[in-house]
Amino acid sequence: MTPDEFRDYGHKLIDFIADYRATIATRPVRATTEPGAIRAQLPTHPPAAAEPFDAVLADLNTILLPGLTHWQHPRFFGYFPSNAELASVLGDFLSTGLGQLGLNWQSSPALTELEELACDWMRQMVGLSGAWSGVIQDAASTATLLALLCARERASNFSLVRGGLQAEPKPLVVYVSSQSHSSVEKAALLAGFGRDNVCAVPVDDAFAMRADALEAAIRADLDAGKVPCAVVATTGTTASTALDPVGAIAEVAARYKLWVHVDAAMAGSAMILPECRSMWAGIEGADSLVLNPHKWLGAVFDCSLFYVRDTEHLIRVMSTSPSYLRTQADGKAPNYRDWGIALGRRFRALKLWCLIRAEGVSGLQARLRRDIANAAWLAGEVSRTPNWKVMAPVPLQTVCVVHEPPELTGEALDAHTRDWAERVNASGAAYLTPAVLAGRWMVRVSVGSITTERADVDAAWNAMRSAAERRNS
Amino acid sequence: MTPDEFRDYGHKLIDFIADYRATIATRPVRATTEPGAIRAQLPTHPPAAAEPFDAVLADLNTILLPGLTHWQHPRFFGYFPSNAELASVLGDFLSTGLGQLGLNWQSSPALTELEELACDWMRQMVGLSGAWSGVIQDAASTATLLALLCARERASNFSLVRGGLQAEPKPLVVYVSSQSHSSVEKAALLAGFGRDNVCAVPVDDAFAMRADALEAAIRADLDAGKVPCAVVATTGTTASTALDPVGAIAEVAARYKLWVHVDAAMAGSAMILPECRSMWAGIEGADSLVLNPHKWLGAVFDCSLFYVRDTEHLIRVMSTSPSYLRTQADGKAPNYRDWGIALGRRFRALKLWCLIRAEGVSGLQARLRRDIANAAWLAGEVSRTPNWKVMAPVPLQTVCVVHEPPELTGEALDAHTRDWAERVNASGAAYLTPAVLAGRWMVRVSVGSITTERADVDAAWNAMRSAAERRNS
Repeated sequence: MTPDEFRDYGHKLIDFIADYRATIATRPVRATTEPGAIRAQLPTHPPAAAEPFDAVLADLNTILLPGLTHWQHPRFFGYFPSNAELASVLGDFLSTGLGQLGLNWQSSPALTELEELACDWMRQMVGLSGAWSGVIQDAASTATLLALLCARERASNFSLVRGGLQAEPKPLVVYVSSQSHSSVEKAALLAGFGRDNVCAVPVDDAFAMRADALEAAIRADLDAGKVPCAVVATTGTTASTALDPVGAIAEVAARYKLWVHVDAAMAGSAMILPECRSMWAGIEGADSLVLNPHKWLGAVFDCSLFYVRDTEHLIRVMSTSPSYLRTQADGKAPNYRDWGIALGRRFRALKLWCLIRAEGVSGLQARLRRDIANAAWLAGEVSRTPNWKVMAPVPLQTVCVVHEPPELTGEALDAHTRDWAERVNASGAAYLTPAVLAGRWMVRVSVGSITTERADVDAAWNAMRSAAERRNS
Repeated sequence: MTPDEFRDYGHKLIDFIADYRATIATRPVRATTEPGAIRAQLPTHPPAAAEPFDAVLADLNTILLPGLTHWQHPRFFGYFPSNAELASVLGDFLSTGLGQLGLNWQSSPALTELEELACDWMRQMVGLSGAWSGVIQDAASTATLLALLCARERASNFSLVRGGLQAEPKPLVVYVSSQSHSSVEKAALLAGFGRDNVCAVPVDDAFAMRADALEAAIRADLDAGKVPCAVVATTGTTASTALDPVGAIAEVAARYKLWVHVDAAMAGSAMILPECRSMWAGIEGADSLVLNPHKWLGAVFDCSLFYVRDTEHLIRVMSTSPSYLRTQADGKAPNYRDWGIALGRRFRALKLWCLIRAEGVSGLQARLRRDIANAAWLAGEVSRTPNWKVMAPVPLQTVCVVHEPPELTGEALDAHTRDWAERVNASGAAYLTPAVLAGRWMVRVSVGSITTERADVDAAWNAMRSAAERRNS
């Protein structure tokens, strides 16, 4: 495609996206297709000859769009907000259009230096001390894997340069909670610890890890000849945004020399609000943390920030320096290839930088406060409605809800819960995520799409009541 | 930013990118800034209030652009082509603008199904059998890590669900060559094998792994009580695009039950040319392979394809299924979160799909053939010029060059090589990558930017002669 063709089609594409965003509320939130239906409409074999780009845009409209679940919809309350704020979108367009590739500083100095800057801006915005340095990863799963690799190598005194984890005389143990995200266990398994050495510490009534139980587990493992290695605390769990006591956990960890990783993937964005920072009080005692501006904050996916206090350790674990990657700038600027798994990197800082500049810190704060207030409002409505219950504290923007008709208990109640959630989702009026909490199915209402206002939360609540209570009418 | 503001700024941005691409040849290829100079021009603290997007675009022009090394420049001959073909750029714009997030099929059916389709198109295009299934990863480093994790778990009979790698009674060994990419050893170290258990198999005069030496190494390790686990063969090494004998390696591996992973990150794109497929003859004997359409082929970074023959094994190693990710579509469509590390995924198939449709297979083939012919032409010129030498076979588009004035040897010659390469790069006339091959510094000329024509290769060759021979004049 020539630059002039790109110009023509690019303008069409901008209008397409602008129209899509402006009219998104008119679409059903959830995709309306059946598995395989989209692929069945597309050619099985690649085209031998070039096709006009108009044909691609036509397929986009007729075939692909019905197959989208609209994450940017004002009545998307599923999973977590994956906000693609439009200034951030433009920032990512710049990254893609410039076609930069970061391999080392010299291969794209602006990419490296803007990543340093954007990570430092976010560090200041969430109130972390200057002891932390950040880097952009694709996802929290990856950041947590990096954290556990750092922990593994610290506890084993860099076994990777010798016989590896497989040569360690005693098993290393990782501590999580029953509410940790699935990616935490996955990271531990990929890092080679083994499921037997992933210890789920009990939680309290608010679904937060118990620091006393952590210490008891560590002591028991020490007695059994194991090596406590790392603990992953969560600020804002996936199911209910529960808040593990980071300070108390870090104190226990310090006594036994564990690596402390804090998973604040979702709730980390809220730390731009000074009134929320007590939620991860003690964070300076952690060794690493992850927070995802690509969730609630609005940097279009993927933009996950991984912060560490000891960058030298991270680099020692991750670095390679083959001849073809060395340049005269080595030592004068960071080479982010040594801060993660992938060698190549996109110019991802642009989308975060554009977001922060276009909204301003105060604009971002106002939006997050709006969402927290909307979630609190919904929790209030649910609490005062007969047969409805809020299942967990609501410190942020996620409300865990159950509808309990008196005649239903146990599996019948679980079936009812999943049924009404599915009916809401199938209606297209709102999109919710059912999940298990304390052994019971409930429904998560995750408030925080950029365009979600009080009226949208109200509409979702009406749809929920209508779907759940219809059964009784 | 509202959709209308997005529309206005989006049109400006399209023109900016179109102009940038149309005039890129007028810029020096390599960035002209010193480490820290870009960051020093930008505010240390994030803005409290929103800024107009015009201010962002102004900074882009005046501060960031001089800090770019122009990968899309027709005289970029560094590292490898990281082509951001403009139809592919539009595909990625769509992905970003739609703001989709793949967590499971239901969260974005079109994302999943187009990824299935695009991976299958590429499978057909490179002549792989229907036994292979593909998935998009960010980078080959990640794909190779996945391959070694799969190998580790197959050799250990799924140690991850028990005591992990650390509980294995005998050390598992990974075989590479001295020419393997640095990411291969890195992956082995991150997967916990340890450097002691990464065995570098000797190469032949063409820098290809010797299958007989592989077998000898395996036998020696077996005698020493170790467990041979995996071998990584390369189709197109980084330094010189050397071709490991995949068929012979796979035969040896089959005898000893090793996992065979083929790193075709760069050269895999060339397999769309039937005349090149002998370069990885025997590929059907491999267990996994990686090829990067985000390199020579032109899908804008990141778009690395990881193919496996046993998807069930991959999924068993990588899968998680917490309650909040289960949907009624499970089992009817792939959940790509179980095919890699990250849970969330971008709609990356769009950029590959748009590239293939806009260029057509024949268009892509013609471009790659042009580049191969240009590299062969350069190799011919170098070979017949006094004191110049081509250091390695040129099967594809990378020419390894050295200028050897008779009076220089050893370290003095190495210094001369690095010096003239730096002078070419500093001039901005072309960008080349010095590297070590067989213990000697040489200069790689990697041909294959989309806009690179014969005249650009000729210009680079003139710049090289001028820089290297000036010393003698």
